[in-house]
Amino acid sequence: MEVYYDNAATTKIIPEVREIMLKTLDMDYGNPSSMHTKGIDAERYIRYAREVISKSLKCSANEIIFTSGGTEANNLALLGICEAKRRTGDHIITTSIEHASVYNPVLRLEELGYRVSFLGVDKNGIVDIEQLKHELCDDTILVSIMAVNNEIGSVQPLSEISDIIHEYNLSHKSNIAFHVDAVQAFGKYRLYPSRIGIDAMSISGHKIHGPKGSGALYVRNGVKIKPIIYGGGQEKSIRSGTENVTAIAGLGKAAEVAYDRLDDNVSVMKNIKDTFVQKALEIDGVVNNSGNASHISSLSFEGVRSEVLLHALEDRGIYVSAGSACSSNHPAVSNVLKAIGMDEGLLDSTLRFSFCEYNTVAEVEYTIGVLKDVLPMLRKYTRK
Amino acid sequence: MEVYYDNAATTKIIPEVREIMLKTLDMDYGNPSSMHTKGIDAERYIRYAREVISKSLKCSANEIIFTSGGTEANNLALLGICEAKRRTGDHIITTSIEHASVYNPVLRLEELGYRVSFLGVDKNGIVDIEQLKHELCDDTILVSIMAVNNEIGSVQPLSEISDIIHEYNLSHKSNIAFHVDAVQAFGKYRLYPSRIGIDAMSISGHKIHGPKGSGALYVRNGVKIKPIIYGGGQEKSIRSGTENVTAIAGLGKAAEVAYDRLDDNVSVMKNIKDTFVQKALEIDGVVNNSGNASHISSLSFEGVRSEVLLHALEDRGIYVSAGSACSSNHPAVSNVLKAIGMDEGLLDSTLRFSFCEYNTVAEVEYTIGVLKDVLPMLRKYTRK
Repeated sequence: MEVYYDNAATTKIIPEVREIMLKTLDMDYGNPSSMHTKGIDAERYIRYAREVISKSLKCSANEIIFTSGGTEANNLALLGICEAKRRTGDHIITTSIEHASVYNPVLRLEELGYRVSFLGVDKNGIVDIEQLKHELCDDTILVSIMAVNNEIGSVQPLSEISDIIHEYNLSHKSNIAFHVDAVQAFGKYRLYPSRIGIDAMSISGHKIHGPKGSGALYVRNGVKIKPIIYGGGQEKSIRSGTENVTAIAGLGKAAEVAYDRLDDNVSVMKNIKDTFVQKALEIDGVVNNSGNASHISSLSFEGVRSEVLLHALEDRGIYVSAGSACSSNHPAVSNVLKAIGMDEGLLDSTLRFSFCEYNTVAEVEYTIGVLKDVLPMLRKYTRK
Repeated sequence: MEVYYDNAATTKIIPEVREIMLKTLDMDYGNPSSMHTKGIDAERYIRYAREVISKSLKCSANEIIFTSGGTEANNLALLGICEAKRRTGDHIITTSIEHASVYNPVLRLEELGYRVSFLGVDKNGIVDIEQLKHELCDDTILVSIMAVNNEIGSVQPLSEISDIIHEYNLSHKSNIAFHVDAVQAFGKYRLYPSRIGIDAMSISGHKIHGPKGSGALYVRNGVKIKPIIYGGGQEKSIRSGTENVTAIAGLGKAAEVAYDRLDDNVSVMKNIKDTFVQKALEIDGVVNNSGNASHISSLSFEGVRSEVLLHALEDRGIYVSAGSACSSNHPAVSNVLKAIGMDEGLLDSTLRFSFCEYNTVAEVEYTIGVLKDVLPMLRKYTRK
């Protein structure tokens, strides 16, 4: 049996996405900037994807800027908004559990002279709201907080956070922007940025059965933002470069399917996650770190190194992550797990199991069986 | 008959590219950063593409940084190298005929306080070498000159330019970097950056029958460069973000095929271009602006607006560009045509016909026939 529990790292594309991608490769391969019909035919895919995504976010089509992925969207939001607001202030607020594609642009901004406050989180990975209130100041230009954490699946109270920012803006005549990295939330939640009061929001295609290399940044009309990539003026001159029609079409289709089936998908994922976590916790020495997201669970296994367990599971056809795949090029102790105050001894014993709607309860049974099988052996022979 | 003469805007992928792209979508869909075999399987495509491309450039595999396309590669080179050299100097030299993806980052650098010199070109679109010698100074940190112009196909004397820069570096103990936008040259020329003395070179996939959204920057080992996109540390931390395995695999395959068949392809394209230009010039009131590149021709048609002729050709199944597709979002008079000193009356009467190895002589005959057919009519009824 093959069990793919690494859906927060990347997902397999669905047939509908494959089909539309192939159309852009085989038939409508024009450059959307070309003046002839081959250009217009290619441009149609982009327009359709933009409409689908704006519908799913209940925003205007012209508020969607396509990027090469979630990482670029986060970079564009952080670097682009801060550079556009440079004369207004120099203070940024973010959290201690952001993805590297927020954390590292923030470090770059520090290098450029900005000041950064990192909000702590509680043991469930929920951001410290009181600290947020405390950190907001006249120099603050941007607050960037992720919707769903990629390692433990904690879900942030975005509306509450937004209310605090907007109250501050009102009472201090400020204009602090609120950015949300929604890469792990898009396609799993109904997130309406204008209703919540979000000014910029990053999404990605390859986490929702769309293609790698696809993503977008929602930028509320009126929010000033500088490009990070300059050129031919595509995407309202905020993101130049010949549009990756294939990826954009795939992202649009993936979003369409995800939101058409949202309730069903979430209930499938939630059932799988809950069943899996519940059964896993019946095993000795298993600790649960999972937040509320329906598709991400994080478990620590006492007395086993995560990498050893990962490969033991892999030998039985089960694919999971240690920490988050996106930073596993640089294996280091996870900032997220440290931030939630995890027991030192468990930091290196933690795996992420992330689900999609195509996972089954039979896979859960199989995985639990394998865990019960390998854990005692690994604890005996590879004890840390 | 359908005749696609817009290959400098974008090309159709070839079956070999389609096949490898589908493999990454259907089978090897893992995240290259994942520690399990699905990650390793995906990573293999990247390694292979890197090897193919480094072989075609006779460089080390670790000198290739994959990007989301030529535009991003140019931005990374310009913004990344200048920011890394900020303390050394503030002067940039480029030309007056660069693509928007060089020109606009350069304007951004001006905004950031850098000084820019734009080299003029002669009537053939060849850069003014004497001016280059004159502009080089102690503050110069970067020279950026395209290999092949995208609108007229002029080919720059890169070795001569490189020699001048390196002589200056030697005699002045300088360390000026030389960047080349080779988007229109890659796959059509054998370009070995280390032999020529190029420090950074941009390439793109979708101009050589590879996918849109694919590209790379060659960065010579030892050249300092700052990222423009920060995150999980992919591509030696110079370009973060989950790798677009599908696009990278497609780029690698397209490069492999292009260089395997280079001589044949170029001779086919050259023959088509030469035949086409020669026959077109037999028509009254046609002016040739084409440079030496085998795949790009630029012709002006006296007394006809380019957009009108473009659509008349399109009605007969012939697809061409007015100016360059990449900037046709912003229809404006071409900087390139102005720079070569084109007669004012022809600026808006110029079309680009760009070829690939799949074009045929029969298509040339057909196109010439159509031109002979429509030009007198258009000149009579739509005269400017």
